[in-house]
Amino acid sequence: MFQSFEVTARPEQGPPRLEALRAELEAEALAGFLVPRADAHQGEYVSARDERLAWLTGFTGSAGFCVALRDVAGVFIDGRYRTQVKAQVADVYTPVPWPDVTLAAWLKEQLPEGGRVGFDPWLHTPGQMEQAREALAGSGVELVQSPNLVDRVWPDQPAPATAPAKVHPLEFAGESHADKRARLGAALSDAGAACAVITLPDSLCWLLNIRGADIPRNPIAQGFAILHRDGAVDLFMAGIKLDDVVDHLGDGVTCHMPDAFLAALEALEGPIRLDKSTVPVIVADTIGDRVQWGDDPCALPKACKNAAEIAGSAEAHLRDGAAVVELLAWLDAQAPGSLRETQVVSQLEGFRRRDNALQDISFETIAGTGPNGAIMHYRVTDVTDATLQDGHLIVLDSGGQYLDGTTDITRTIAIGTPPDEARTAFTRVLMGMIAMSRLIWPKGLAGRDIEAIGRAPLWYAHQDFDHGLGHGVGAYLSVHEGPQRLARTSHVPFQPGMILSNEPGYYREGAFGIRIENLLVVEKAPPPEGGDAHREMLKWRTLTYAPVDRNLIVPDMLDAASRDWLNAYHAETLELIGPRVSDTAHAWLVEACRPL
Amino acid sequence: MFQSFEVTARPEQGPPRLEALRAELEAEALAGFLVPRADAHQGEYVSARDERLAWLTGFTGSAGFCVALRDVAGVFIDGRYRTQVKAQVADVYTPVPWPDVTLAAWLKEQLPEGGRVGFDPWLHTPGQMEQAREALAGSGVELVQSPNLVDRVWPDQPAPATAPAKVHPLEFAGESHADKRARLGAALSDAGAACAVITLPDSLCWLLNIRGADIPRNPIAQGFAILHRDGAVDLFMAGIKLDDVVDHLGDGVTCHMPDAFLAALEALEGPIRLDKSTVPVIVADTIGDRVQWGDDPCALPKACKNAAEIAGSAEAHLRDGAAVVELLAWLDAQAPGSLRETQVVSQLEGFRRRDNALQDISFETIAGTGPNGAIMHYRVTDVTDATLQDGHLIVLDSGGQYLDGTTDITRTIAIGTPPDEARTAFTRVLMGMIAMSRLIWPKGLAGRDIEAIGRAPLWYAHQDFDHGLGHGVGAYLSVHEGPQRLARTSHVPFQPGMILSNEPGYYREGAFGIRIENLLVVEKAPPPEGGDAHREMLKWRTLTYAPVDRNLIVPDMLDAASRDWLNAYHAETLELIGPRVSDTAHAWLVEACRPL
Repeated sequence: MFQSFEVTARPEQGPPRLEALRAELEAEALAGFLVPRADAHQGEYVSARDERLAWLTGFTGSAGFCVALRDVAGVFIDGRYRTQVKAQVADVYTPVPWPDVTLAAWLKEQLPEGGRVGFDPWLHTPGQMEQAREALAGSGVELVQSPNLVDRVWPDQPAPATAPAKVHPLEFAGESHADKRARLGAALSDAGAACAVITLPDSLCWLLNIRGADIPRNPIAQGFAILHRDGAVDLFMAGIKLDDVVDHLGDGVTCHMPDAFLAALEALEGPIRLDKSTVPVIVADTIGDRVQWGDDPCALPKACKNAAEIAGSAEAHLRDGAAVVELLAWLDAQAPGSLRETQVVSQLEGFRRRDNALQDISFETIAGTGPNGAIMHYRVTDVTDATLQDGHLIVLDSGGQYLDGTTDITRTIAIGTPPDEARTAFTRVLMGMIAMSRLIWPKGLAGRDIEAIGRAPLWYAHQDFDHGLGHGVGAYLSVHEGPQRLARTSHVPFQPGMILSNEPGYYREGAFGIRIENLLVVEKAPPPEGGDAHREMLKWRTLTYAPVDRNLIVPDMLDAASRDWLNAYHAETLELIGPRVSDTAHAWLVEACRPL
Repeated sequence: MFQSFEVTARPEQGPPRLEALRAELEAEALAGFLVPRADAHQGEYVSARDERLAWLTGFTGSAGFCVALRDVAGVFIDGRYRTQVKAQVADVYTPVPWPDVTLAAWLKEQLPEGGRVGFDPWLHTPGQMEQAREALAGSGVELVQSPNLVDRVWPDQPAPATAPAKVHPLEFAGESHADKRARLGAALSDAGAACAVITLPDSLCWLLNIRGADIPRNPIAQGFAILHRDGAVDLFMAGIKLDDVVDHLGDGVTCHMPDAFLAALEALEGPIRLDKSTVPVIVADTIGDRVQWGDDPCALPKACKNAAEIAGSAEAHLRDGAAVVELLAWLDAQAPGSLRETQVVSQLEGFRRRDNALQDISFETIAGTGPNGAIMHYRVTDVTDATLQDGHLIVLDSGGQYLDGTTDITRTIAIGTPPDEARTAFTRVLMGMIAMSRLIWPKGLAGRDIEAIGRAPLWYAHQDFDHGLGHGVGAYLSVHEGPQRLARTSHVPFQPGMILSNEPGYYREGAFGIRIENLLVVEKAPPPEGGDAHREMLKWRTLTYAPVDRNLIVPDMLDAASRDWLNAYHAETLELIGPRVSDTAHAWLVEACRPL
């Protein structure tokens, strides 16, 4: 079983660890030290070695940081984690509502006389530091580079991950790494750069058509790379990880040990492309004025999936959809009050594992019933594990990592007879999800330009939800992948081949949660009869197939176009998923996919 | 009659004028000269004296510029004017599709050896010049300040406008100019500025509660002002315009002659707030390093109308709506084939004038029937004047300037029996217009975040339109007023009191045009039963009342919520406008407002 329900946070461990860290502050004559939930690769998941924030504070969320000062230690957490942090950290830690309160504002308040606050230059980006330093100007608070003080006081800190890298076959990648390197090298050259430093492991893995297992949930191999304008790559990765891929990498890729990285950077000729928002400070400092700031050259090409990647993702989604349908059929056969959340998670993972294609789950399954459903990033543990009761909704957000693709699907299911207010809210969420799924829009628009389409049905009822409508998704890579997002924060225009989630929701604290999520891929929209033939427009193709719970739909609230869409979607679901499920599940699916 | 149908462009006058200008280029040793459609106040309308672009080239559009070089003269026009320009300019002028081709790109191509291109520093902003100079870097093309060469060769150039300014009564303004000056001065002080230079006449008129008549369609008095942090104002305006307002201005406002303006700027202490996008280059140069770049301090306060302004606007809209209803009733009684566009325009202006409240029309009425309707900024002339024929649609976009408010309304009316494709397109436009009118949205969003709501019904049919969904509107001021817009270009968050147009459209070249436009004002939305009480949300209140042509609606395409909205809107229209119209129009209105 990939997922565990262990309570990893032990609040009581926090105080002595903080005390040990403060002794180091004293020794280094620092007023404080920053402990981000980050590694040198700025990924969403970190390896066990890099779980410094959780080790120190107990807080296990996927974003946030601690600022340990001599007398106070702030744990900065965003809106998703304000409840969770209270349960996970001891009272020597002070939760700080971030980003409402910024690092700089808090430091100025806590250190009115100023002071030197240390940070590990491998774990922060120049973008972060510039912003903080600007805001601290004149305050007397200085951010200074320092050895990592948590590493000093963490006696049993795990070693760096050394999982073997594997070849990602051309069948799934769709383009050889030689072709990718040549194509991206030429683009760098056109942009006047001599090379680019790649510090994001998913970029590196995509570029070289390799995958790894250094961190949970994301099939990446950690390392650094330099892509030269002629397409040659210098790869910095522990040799122990490379045995299975050396032949595949071939002549165009020269392998080095990780500790040769900084020296290699020093020897480079500029201009050198760095991404200010993801590169470690120490890399930027080493490059100095040879830098050409710009995007990671892999980011956009990686986001625009090719035909093989899209075909692979579609197949992965059918396989994954079959597992989800088995789960839904099984769940429907259980009596209200007879199941706990952990059983649902285990059962779902069991269905996903059945045909041995599952490499990992793509993130910790969220299975929140009743009030737990309103906790947006709920992870069930043995302590929180709740029983699915009559009248509950359960939010089930899960995904799989398959060699041919990464999935991410959310369904919300009624247990017994759901309350009316949940059904009306569910139907509004569904209306937004359908309005976006059906959308056709002019080329050139970004997430910010169209996100409202998926929210408006809730807005009309003075309701909304506090997360983005959707995120990019990788091809057997990260389940959260940039640069595009279906969110107000995103100004990256959509392009054919981009895969995104479409996941409106609604959360009533203490009562219930709702989320419906499909993955979609951007395609060119051919003009229909009567359309404007001269307009270049884009549309979605749906990748995810699994029925939407009809017990939660108020049919009269749907307009004709939405109802037609849902009926067609359910008919396709039956056609595509039906042949892949057990007889029992098939019988259930026929019923679940009846026209509304 | 305010509107004229005269053909003002005389293409044959262009060549000798261009020749005279080129003699001046020779004399000044310049490679070229820029002739913008702009005055020192960067307004949308300019006085007769500032109609240099039209005088030189014949082109009368509301945006664009000419670059007269020794051998070629480019007339830069945007998408709205690509057809019009061909009819208006002689072939010594070369239309340039702008902004696809930028000034810099064109200059680099036309002047491969480089050269000095002159511009009048009163007519261009630092923002424009910086952008052009950056793009010209290294090309050898220089933009240099110069006397205005058009003024030199324009023998009968009109004198500056000297219409008397008038007091804008407190009843309509809602806040005394002393209070406004104190409030804005304090805000400047908080922002660390000593004063602000105000070069936009509508800002100046709003701040001082005066109006004028220096240019057509906008009731503004041209001038410049300096607002000091203590609320004192130095006003630079021809004394001849000030007789009626001197007492009203009082002690806090010191009047100076316009030619004292630059010397007064030289004497100011900094920091001095300037708006980079609207201030003349010569003003910025005079201020030099005392500048604090920022927004015009009047822009946002002026946009957020107070209770008196909103009440005035609502009343103006009812008065104006009655005139429009009279027109619609009259139009419906005419046989297809019996009317020309100019007759419709004259009749409408007649109805607006009937109660003597009309100060001016707020822009040239657009009355485009059949293919003319597809020309988005069509101005009917004696030459283009077309007959309203059976099967035609006529787009009627018009507005009035009243002491209590500015209106802007578009209705599209079927003449006889409209074709099916026009009815379906019209219904889609209406769906977008209704979806936006009904919208409730979270505080903090801007035009870019919600514009899609008004376009999506067209998008689903692979259709769209090439203008913004809406623009800000003044309170007895400019019919196009910033800073907010209901458009993808706008990142200014909506605030209560902002008035905007909501005007989706559809244009099929050579066939028909459709546009439906109401003005709306932003209000706080109280949470209804079942809504999220903690969310601050905003909504629209409709100001414009006039029926939407039911002959163009395909009722089955409307969902229940849209139909309910339209029926309620028509019921309100009958209730509010009914008592204000003639018996004939009332009988027509009852029919036009029947529930769908």
